[in-house]
Amino acid sequence: MKEFRVNAKGAFKLKDVKADYGSGDKAETKEKLLALNKELEMLQEQLYAEHKHKVLVILQAMDTGGKDGVIRHVFEGVNPQGVRVAGFKAPTPLELDHDYLWRVHQQAPAKGELVIFNRSHYEDVLVVAVHQLVPEKVWCKRYDQINDFERMLAEEGTTICKFFLHIDLDEQKQRLQERLENPDKQWKFNPDDLKERKLWPEYMKAYEAVLRRTSTDWAPWYVVPSNKKWFRNYVVASILVKTLRGLNMKYPKADFDPSAIQIDGTALP
Amino acid sequence: MKEFRVNAKGAFKLKDVKADYGSGDKAETKEKLLALNKELEMLQEQLYAEHKHKVLVILQAMDTGGKDGVIRHVFEGVNPQGVRVAGFKAPTPLELDHDYLWRVHQQAPAKGELVIFNRSHYEDVLVVAVHQLVPEKVWCKRYDQINDFERMLAEEGTTICKFFLHIDLDEQKQRLQERLENPDKQWKFNPDDLKERKLWPEYMKAYEAVLRRTSTDWAPWYVVPSNKKWFRNYVVASILVKTLRGLNMKYPKADFDPSAIQIDGTALP
Repeated sequence: MKEFRVNAKGAFKLKDVKADYGSGDKAETKEKLLALNKELEMLQEQLYAEHKHKVLVILQAMDTGGKDGVIRHVFEGVNPQGVRVAGFKAPTPLELDHDYLWRVHQQAPAKGELVIFNRSHYEDVLVVAVHQLVPEKVWCKRYDQINDFERMLAEEGTTICKFFLHIDLDEQKQRLQERLENPDKQWKFNPDDLKERKLWPEYMKAYEAVLRRTSTDWAPWYVVPSNKKWFRNYVVASILVKTLRGLNMKYPKADFDPSAIQIDGTALP
Repeated sequence: MKEFRVNAKGAFKLKDVKADYGSGDKAETKEKLLALNKELEMLQEQLYAEHKHKVLVILQAMDTGGKDGVIRHVFEGVNPQGVRVAGFKAPTPLELDHDYLWRVHQQAPAKGELVIFNRSHYEDVLVVAVHQLVPEKVWCKRYDQINDFERMLAEEGTTICKFFLHIDLDEQKQRLQERLENPDKQWKFNPDDLKERKLWPEYMKAYEAVLRRTSTDWAPWYVVPSNKKWFRNYVVASILVKTLRGLNMKYPKADFDPSAIQIDGTALP
């Protein structure tokens, strides 16, 4: 867990993390993931029942990095009641008329809820920075703004885990190629993705800035080697399960005496 | 499927449906449910990919009737992305300042989305009618209003399935007792539920009116015998799978020529 956490005070370098890293046996790791799925299911039920904590999971990655795959494989089995996915695509005109955190705040988890952000406010210092969609003097203030915003959420009871699913340029090429060749996956391919791909070095620089400046004690970033999907899923699930265990959740006690209640005033047959 | 559908033009009687009905072998039916879960997962992926249809599933039941159980067992395995549960509890003061369909409309599914209503606008002719929370001359107009509203949703591309999970008085007693006795389930028990239980005949009358007046060609009601959980889950999953199959969904074709695209202009190694 610590292995992949970005130190809040270090000079993090993205090139120190190998995207194709993976330890352990593939089949065994997949078995372990199944056990983690089960535990996550149980922890999420407690989260919902206890109605005390709020949990926010943020997923960021380059195209094909595996955000959808993580949502599918890590969260399959959890009760859709109490788990919500919020996707942040290109902002609408209405959203652009507001500050960039406006639409994000609306999707923040409530008590008992686990919300997964598929992309997030981090796009406002990633795609926005790479394409200079707003002037640098505007977006460069956002790292601190984001830290302040996330601190408020945390102080108000939100547990935040942020994951950067790290793949490399070769892996993206193979995954794009697969989307092109598989008729059931072509809908996921957007020719514009190739334009973004050409800006890979600029994106890596923008991600490095994000990871250095916004990995905090209250909202840490984890950089997950993601070329190997089985390893990626296992790492994300492990970190989430450990984090949720740390909340020491309990099913709430009844605020009445269950033994004093008789339904219809008679004992059951 | 037709067996449980409420005829749009008949004089439906709730007492003709036995809550403890169940056909088939329990173990075999559970196996069949697993196959339906898999197919539902695949159909939901197509729904999301095709981005054309909207799907609305409405669940209504008396307390302990199994709304949460259906959400868990029928929808486990679907991708949380593209599936959303909207729960409708007692309205807030802000919601009460609006018409009763205002908060409901906001939660309607978008293209590609499957939304499950855990309770719904039907409470506005159920609990509201039983407790006379608004005058009868107000709520009695709501059947037609609801039919009109649902017709608009359907005409705008929404497929609607409504399920009444039908249990009987004895079954509710046993389930309430179980909640009382199991410390992990006490949080689901609310002593006020016993007050509602005393109004069972009034609720059955209100449900009968709902089923008679709002089962339409564009938004049919299904009354599901739900004493036996395994049978209930199987019936709901069967109806949903058949309904979704009927949409004849396809993965969208690329609007470009995939074979003409070369990533980075070179072939893969």
